[in-house]
Amino acid sequence: MLAFDVFGTVVDWRSGIARESARFLDMIGRGDLDPETFADAWRARYQPAMAAVRDGKRTFVILDVLHREMLDLVLASYGVDPQAIDANLLHDWTRAWHRLDPWPDAVEGLTRLKVRFPIVTLSNGNVALMLGIARRGGLPWDAILGAEVSHFYKPDLRAYVATAAILGLPPHELCLVAAHHSDLAAARRANLLTAYVDRPLERGGPLAPDHDQRQSWEWQANSLTDLAEQLGC
Amino acid sequence: MLAFDVFGTVVDWRSGIARESARFLDMIGRGDLDPETFADAWRARYQPAMAAVRDGKRTFVILDVLHREMLDLVLASYGVDPQAIDANLLHDWTRAWHRLDPWPDAVEGLTRLKVRFPIVTLSNGNVALMLGIARRGGLPWDAILGAEVSHFYKPDLRAYVATAAILGLPPHELCLVAAHHSDLAAARRANLLTAYVDRPLERGGPLAPDHDQRQSWEWQANSLTDLAEQLGC
Repeated sequence: MLAFDVFGTVVDWRSGIARESARFLDMIGRGDLDPETFADAWRARYQPAMAAVRDGKRTFVILDVLHREMLDLVLASYGVDPQAIDANLLHDWTRAWHRLDPWPDAVEGLTRLKVRFPIVTLSNGNVALMLGIARRGGLPWDAILGAEVSHFYKPDLRAYVATAAILGLPPHELCLVAAHHSDLAAARRANLLTAYVDRPLERGGPLAPDHDQRQSWEWQANSLTDLAEQLGC
Repeated sequence: MLAFDVFGTVVDWRSGIARESARFLDMIGRGDLDPETFADAWRARYQPAMAAVRDGKRTFVILDVLHREMLDLVLASYGVDPQAIDANLLHDWTRAWHRLDPWPDAVEGLTRLKVRFPIVTLSNGNVALMLGIARRGGLPWDAILGAEVSHFYKPDLRAYVATAAILGLPPHELCLVAAHHSDLAAARRANLLTAYVDRPLERGGPLAPDHDQRQSWEWQANSLTDLAEQLGC
């Protein structure tokens, strides 16, 4: 079976969050801010936000909740008081993460892979978030798994092990498909198979922060259609 | 959104379990037993098996585990010692529940409903079980939810409430589709909408044990295609 990372691997979070944030920044009178920089700043809060849960200092909360808290922090870092903004607007802004678009090859690649392999999400995104993205983009998941189902955030090894167990598989019969070496490295430590998909535009061009964790993965592909090709789908 | 009961509502568990059990009964030299009676006896252990979890006397375990324990009890009730049977055979027999077929209208009905509404499972079956059935029969779920995700077995009201919460919905925006009045009655107490689908052949003909719990549900349909019709899909 194939389990997929979603943000960056299947959907283009940066363009989507920039597009949506441009609209909201205008609405709060901060059209002067660059929306792509804003998207990067929002995403930069991602790992620290999950760290408290991963370290056991905080009970599990879903990513929608963390995204909302991260938004408050990013706004504050730009001198905007989130308390002064309408709560519904902030809620809708947070749900920008539900309205991300797939990379151009994703729907065709997943559809082809699904003929031969069950395809599930193994994302830190919560179920409603994954469902929103899938319905919008037509992503044909067999099941939506990941942090909200396992209660562990990647790269906690238990996130991978628990997902395999839920699927009724030993870890070595599950393959993680991801665009991030750090994610794949953790999956490999948890005894999963690994497939790397290159997404050079995920951050708009710059080298990924985890490029030094590159290893020889079981599969390496330039797109999900390329992966389908390599897997005979 | 629409959440579906699966056993009896979407798939015909009785024919499937009888068909599979006929094969296994032959293998253990008990071809004398009637496979449909055996299927009914196995299913009859369903509510008692979940009761310990529902009553908080037992930590949550998935339905695959309960199905396996129930099989031991049914075999023993027929004078067969399960300890004397190969464990792999019993494992495969238990997985008969993964190999159930949809009712004839299910795939078309779900496919039509899915165009307009997200469709998810709200079954007591675990994820791997639901995934096996869906892959085999081509059931196009948007997400697989239910007992293993919420950790509550229906008709515990928390099973319905938790599923709505995971979907990011207030309960009254989620509709349970089910062939069982008892399931719908609990869903209604949890403030969900309700849609009844009549499955007169679920038990091979006899009246359902919960027919006295019949109420006027928001929708009543003879099949999932009929429900699609009524919902304008």
